[in-house]
Amino acid sequence: MPASLQPRDTSRDGLRNKVEAAVLSGFEPFWALVNRTPWIARIANRIIVNNAVLKAPCRPLALSTQAATTNWATLTDRTWFSRYLPPAPQDQLPPAADVATLFKLRPDRPPVPSDRSTLLFPSFAQWFTDGFLMTDTDRRRTRTNHQIDLSQLYGLNESVTNALRRRSELPGEKGKLKSVISATGEWAPALYDAAGRRDAAFALVPEPTHLPGNWPIEKRAALFAFGGERANSTAFTASVNTLFLREHNRLCTMLERDNQTWTDERVFQTARNINIVLLIKLVVEEYINHISPYWMRLLADPTPAYTARWNRETWIPVEFNLLYRWHSLVPTEAMWGAKPVDLAGLRFDNRTLLQDGLVTALAGASQTRAWRIGPFNTAPMLEMVEAASIQQGRDNRLASYNDYRVLMKYPRVTRFEQINGDPLVVSELARIYAHVDRVELFTGLFSEELPPRSAVPPLIGRMVAADAFSHALTNPLLSPAVYHAGTFTPAGMDVIEKTATLADLLARNDEVPAGTRISMEAEGYRSVA
Amino acid sequence: MPASLQPRDTSRDGLRNKVEAAVLSGFEPFWALVNRTPWIARIANRIIVNNAVLKAPCRPLALSTQAATTNWATLTDRTWFSRYLPPAPQDQLPPAADVATLFKLRPDRPPVPSDRSTLLFPSFAQWFTDGFLMTDTDRRRTRTNHQIDLSQLYGLNESVTNALRRRSELPGEKGKLKSVISATGEWAPALYDAAGRRDAAFALVPEPTHLPGNWPIEKRAALFAFGGERANSTAFTASVNTLFLREHNRLCTMLERDNQTWTDERVFQTARNINIVLLIKLVVEEYINHISPYWMRLLADPTPAYTARWNRETWIPVEFNLLYRWHSLVPTEAMWGAKPVDLAGLRFDNRTLLQDGLVTALAGASQTRAWRIGPFNTAPMLEMVEAASIQQGRDNRLASYNDYRVLMKYPRVTRFEQINGDPLVVSELARIYAHVDRVELFTGLFSEELPPRSAVPPLIGRMVAADAFSHALTNPLLSPAVYHAGTFTPAGMDVIEKTATLADLLARNDEVPAGTRISMEAEGYRSVA
Repeated sequence: MPASLQPRDTSRDGLRNKVEAAVLSGFEPFWALVNRTPWIARIANRIIVNNAVLKAPCRPLALSTQAATTNWATLTDRTWFSRYLPPAPQDQLPPAADVATLFKLRPDRPPVPSDRSTLLFPSFAQWFTDGFLMTDTDRRRTRTNHQIDLSQLYGLNESVTNALRRRSELPGEKGKLKSVISATGEWAPALYDAAGRRDAAFALVPEPTHLPGNWPIEKRAALFAFGGERANSTAFTASVNTLFLREHNRLCTMLERDNQTWTDERVFQTARNINIVLLIKLVVEEYINHISPYWMRLLADPTPAYTARWNRETWIPVEFNLLYRWHSLVPTEAMWGAKPVDLAGLRFDNRTLLQDGLVTALAGASQTRAWRIGPFNTAPMLEMVEAASIQQGRDNRLASYNDYRVLMKYPRVTRFEQINGDPLVVSELARIYAHVDRVELFTGLFSEELPPRSAVPPLIGRMVAADAFSHALTNPLLSPAVYHAGTFTPAGMDVIEKTATLADLLARNDEVPAGTRISMEAEGYRSVA
Repeated sequence: MPASLQPRDTSRDGLRNKVEAAVLSGFEPFWALVNRTPWIARIANRIIVNNAVLKAPCRPLALSTQAATTNWATLTDRTWFSRYLPPAPQDQLPPAADVATLFKLRPDRPPVPSDRSTLLFPSFAQWFTDGFLMTDTDRRRTRTNHQIDLSQLYGLNESVTNALRRRSELPGEKGKLKSVISATGEWAPALYDAAGRRDAAFALVPEPTHLPGNWPIEKRAALFAFGGERANSTAFTASVNTLFLREHNRLCTMLERDNQTWTDERVFQTARNINIVLLIKLVVEEYINHISPYWMRLLADPTPAYTARWNRETWIPVEFNLLYRWHSLVPTEAMWGAKPVDLAGLRFDNRTLLQDGLVTALAGASQTRAWRIGPFNTAPMLEMVEAASIQQGRDNRLASYNDYRVLMKYPRVTRFEQINGDPLVVSELARIYAHVDRVELFTGLFSEELPPRSAVPPLIGRMVAADAFSHALTNPLLSPAVYHAGTFTPAGMDVIEKTATLADLLARNDEVPAGTRISMEAEGYRSVA
């Protein structure tokens, strides 16, 4: 998106919102001081986290996608998505195909790169959300366990987990996941043999979602037996999953060393518990800090949840699912080793990953600039996915963008110019919707102008923060009765303490050449003070 | 139990516990004033409820009956019971048959009646807990939904519910459960026909638990098609279930009258929502007030939960299941109309209920004195159930009575005389266990001496209060996003407001002759100031 020819009309941003943004995204030296002073940082973190979560209504919500009015199922049946606002009439909407043009590249302007994020950011986001945002084919039900449970690695249920476990009581093997060792390190076993047939040992492991039936045998043979149905989607998602596989097995070695009487079962379960907490640590301390436009370094401290009104079990809202469609971030090319490669070529194909190793993949993602999130910036291969998202909003009869602004404590917009200062965005929104009140949620979310220091637009930022914190910090592993060395062992607590980034995890699980940069932040960008 | 020959040794009651008991069970005029002053009552209620719940650890707990150490299943898989303390060695325990003698009547002392409770109290307790305390045959798993959801009436899942619904869009029928009208009022339809064959329409409705295969056809033909597998257990449980069935259909008539455009589905779901809240109201305002030894009238105000550390989704602990085995309360005879009848004769037999009606049954239960809860006081027909409870504690490897005292903030006892002042209880405990540290939870719970004004002994009272409040008040129907007229309609809110007792419910659903007493309280007894 080019710099706006005119500044966005900020008259409907809301005074409190403006003050909050100014305080939290300004005063860098003050926040640097806070970040350096642990006890103040914990207090500030508590205030910021509570403020972020309480922008949205607290769970349990009255509705799910199961019905339009409250019933016992909308309150208890988690095979449906939860929802914030009741179904609304969809009769004033423009044709979906027309809306979809907002999510396509245009001949008159080149794709806009992000000034903040590398490809590691959307790659991690894709892999991470594939653990809990699974929409069923009818676009209303879900197969998720709702929790952050590393189902990408361990599977959604015990039968998948069992197929992936080594299940050996031999020293050095206890607790481990099945894996194979090659010249480039440790990998999940192959899901298909060289002839393209599924390995019978993994009959219960899910087929990769959207894998074409006629997929070439040589690419198929490089797919991994992963618990998650989407973890093989690209070589980058497979890389992150492999990193957590290696960490699991590394944790098993550590746990067995310290607890020689433990059974395979106990080593496995404890390693999984630690690994899930490591993911939550990364999510808050690297990923959310990257998303946040604040100078304060947000902390994976679960204690704010313990006394909060929002300390209720998670249940993924359909709106959370929809706002997470950050496909415009994904570029068409990525650096791989020294040269750019076509991203589409890394889909369902881990051959170059197996050959060049994790460091090449993750360093390449870190050298590749993501695209900027927003309209007219989605790569052609992902246009279909944007169209499906528009349809999911309609199938679930979501309320309007303006209704969701009010829910999330923003004033309604009254002019398109309050959404974005870019005249093309304004004119296209006006052409398609005629009136701002008709703008649907999905369109509004992604049409908002990106403020300075922001990885995502304001309403997405607010909604994702509310759900991300209340999702991550209410995880049962972080609860007072569980979050201690009795559950994780002292060595496990120490690992948790020392892990904040994917780079930390990679350094423990591969040979990382000095000076290798593994980061979601574009070079020269700093997310926290 | 006869009056103790010597007072119980109270040296291990704990100072704070003694002060709390003295303040809350004394000062009747002060509490009478509190009860009369709504705003003070709400504050006092909040303090008392929080104090009661925080005696136990907050959910989520680290363990379930699934495993001895924390794993992802013990944190998420609700097909197991939750548990407060980890499994403990069971090798110092006396033979279970020996322990069972503590739960039998003795030739040397007659059964002891309660000075506080009528048979309506254990009848309601039995019916109520059969909604959420279902132990599977292996004694470790559970089939419960964990919530108070009136599954006794509606069934544990949608397929049962659907079988029981009338499903008609005709005026006057919308939302209703199937029922038949006789000279004595409205009843659930018969589960078996006159030849003793199951009605095919109710194929998915559960078979009554423990119904003997050779049960006489004429008794079988009087069983109701109820959602709950134990709701037919006695004519008294069937009475309470019938009362909620009538209330459901009455609510449907009311809702349809006020909302003529509503569908059958919406009327049904809204009536069910209201009916569940009515049950929770009754549970707190009649049942818990009957159990509580306090002069303060406890209120079904959900707002204390909203800001509490314990505001997490319920998950039934195995200890809660076990402490609820109040079988010694059940006498061998009950008043029915003007004459006493054998209680065993009312098992799986609703013929006299169908003939004489709900008022006769519930007034009879209210005229019948319950027995006193405690050792040497279980009717012969229930001895087997006590033995099964002892075994369930052992199968789940529960920790000792003393360990649970510490968990619930009581000092360990050091002498049997601190449990009970009755020399026979002391000598039998000493004979069976030799040392107080060996006393198992189930035995300890039921061997404690009943203090003045108490329906249950102290440790049971404390454990049941912690779980009852955190169970009832975290029900999703009571949450801020749900508990309002938008969910229940204004008329529904009004019904909720006006319902506090089974007598209220009965008055709306049957012809109750003037002067009929429907109460859990023994005549002359007052539970609150």
